[in-house]
Amino acid sequence: MKISPMKILFALLLFATVALAADPLPSWNDGLAKKSIVEFVAKVTTPGSPDFVPVPERIATFDNDGTLWCEQPLPVQLYFVLDRVKALAPQHPEWQTTEPFASLLKGDLKTTLAGGERGLLDLVMATQTGMTTVEFEQIVNDWISTAKHPKTGRLFTEMTYQPMLEVLAYLRANGFKTFIVSGGGIEFMRPWAERVYGVPPEQVVGSSVKTKFEMRDGNPVLVRLPEVNFIDDKGGKPVGINEHIGRRPIMAFGNSDGDREMLEYTQGGGGARFELLVLHDDGAREFAYGPAKGLPDVKLAAFTPALYEQAQKNGWTVVSMKDDWKRIFAFEK
Amino acid sequence: MKISPMKILFALLLFATVALAADPLPSWNDGLAKKSIVEFVAKVTTPGSPDFVPVPERIATFDNDGTLWCEQPLPVQLYFVLDRVKALAPQHPEWQTTEPFASLLKGDLKTTLAGGERGLLDLVMATQTGMTTVEFEQIVNDWISTAKHPKTGRLFTEMTYQPMLEVLAYLRANGFKTFIVSGGGIEFMRPWAERVYGVPPEQVVGSSVKTKFEMRDGNPVLVRLPEVNFIDDKGGKPVGINEHIGRRPIMAFGNSDGDREMLEYTQGGGGARFELLVLHDDGAREFAYGPAKGLPDVKLAAFTPALYEQAQKNGWTVVSMKDDWKRIFAFEK
Repeated sequence: MKISPMKILFALLLFATVALAADPLPSWNDGLAKKSIVEFVAKVTTPGSPDFVPVPERIATFDNDGTLWCEQPLPVQLYFVLDRVKALAPQHPEWQTTEPFASLLKGDLKTTLAGGERGLLDLVMATQTGMTTVEFEQIVNDWISTAKHPKTGRLFTEMTYQPMLEVLAYLRANGFKTFIVSGGGIEFMRPWAERVYGVPPEQVVGSSVKTKFEMRDGNPVLVRLPEVNFIDDKGGKPVGINEHIGRRPIMAFGNSDGDREMLEYTQGGGGARFELLVLHDDGAREFAYGPAKGLPDVKLAAFTPALYEQAQKNGWTVVSMKDDWKRIFAFEK
Repeated sequence: MKISPMKILFALLLFATVALAADPLPSWNDGLAKKSIVEFVAKVTTPGSPDFVPVPERIATFDNDGTLWCEQPLPVQLYFVLDRVKALAPQHPEWQTTEPFASLLKGDLKTTLAGGERGLLDLVMATQTGMTTVEFEQIVNDWISTAKHPKTGRLFTEMTYQPMLEVLAYLRANGFKTFIVSGGGIEFMRPWAERVYGVPPEQVVGSSVKTKFEMRDGNPVLVRLPEVNFIDDKGGKPVGINEHIGRRPIMAFGNSDGDREMLEYTQGGGGARFELLVLHDDGAREFAYGPAKGLPDVKLAAFTPALYEQAQKNGWTVVSMKDDWKRIFAFEK
């Protein structure tokens, strides 16, 4: 039998396609972390498997800061807050003598952040409320389309982790609905989460301020009020998941103490469950921090030793960015 | 040319399929209401149409009580509350002398409901909190699988409006995501909304109590607290829509004053929008009530003259159940 060149080409193409299909996570090094993800997805999606999960119940939740994108030297939303204060300062002369605004405007970040979460909340309320939800969406879109990371000079939306983008796509290709469950502002993430992560607004869960329906100049609008509605962090994450999703996830991904309860809640359901924590141990390609080292302590980012111990005990997958990820950002060679 | 019987059969099958496809709303009489729905869906889904809406933005929201299922003589959830009080009464001897429990247990519904929304809230808090969300789901499932409508003797889940079930399916077949946005309890609807309406838990928006994450006997659970978290009614509906969906609907369906703001908010967006109100004018096949007539006034169900006027002025579609619906319930001949 003579084998035609066309047939050889076809066979090669087929091989390439199969090889590609066989590695849905090309930015992951072969290792326990990658293996645990692929094996879990295989067992819950294989009909007849004792661990099979029907499509509607394939819910996966992802923390955002430090899990899907870089949160150092400061969480991205904090840069947004700082830029908002600077942009609005001319309309608020009183900020020149009021903390935490005064320090911020003088460029003294350390004093600005010394007030902790309470001070941050003041900054958020002063700069992110009063307008309608539509106006706020525009403000976020304008900012995110130009704001850049202070170290790499890349757009923040490029500072997303390529291996995690692959996990998001891989899960969706296997019938999962992927949700973001973040301590960050829900309305800060929604405008770009669909474009960047493939996660639509209705699958974003986050912290929020109260809103109020009213007629402004005959137009029905929602106005953002300077009052906390919900903090989607720690024990709040399972609460937010229940409120928005109404099902317990079968997979959950996080990177800090703020994700502990989400992972516990996920693991607490019956049947096959999967929990993963990203460990930031790659100072060369990203930032090395467990308990935040030498960074302004805003208590937003900590993979504590206690959490690490719990991960080992509970059998949660811990990803070493250094060892498990072939590349971290898409822009890397 | 000889035409084979097979070809004729095939032609007939094809014709039948086309005829079926041509009427996605078989329980609707031909009329303005049906026409307005079909024409709207055609224009927003036809590529190249000036009103074309991309699939991710095809959001449709539906009120539940009186819009998707019967809410007379009392809203279904009220029967659930009453049955819960009776079931728990043996454990609460003090209810025999405390209102609104005492009247309810004596069968005096009028006095029970005289306390209005405040009294109802007391009944809800006393009977639907303290347990975990998983336990509550089981309680709802047990009840809804046996509870029957006092007039028809049918399961409440059979008291859904066949024409509206067709609209839900028709919209989904046209790329819409269908959401329930109801004043009713979110955790009361979720356990059966997927089976009955095809609406998954993550697409149900409703009123809620606060929940708290905790470990009970080493298990991570959410406990229902006797504290209102959110009332998803009137101005709360746009707030709930924004919180859960994060996009403005392009279609909204309601039947009472509680839906006014949802319809206004929907109409207030740019581009093509559609709003519909169901008018309960069929006393023979269902119940005739505008402003609730002779029914216990719990202020949960009212299509007021003012709302009717606004519907006319704003060009909202008003459905006459008597004239527009060929049949109301699936069990009708």
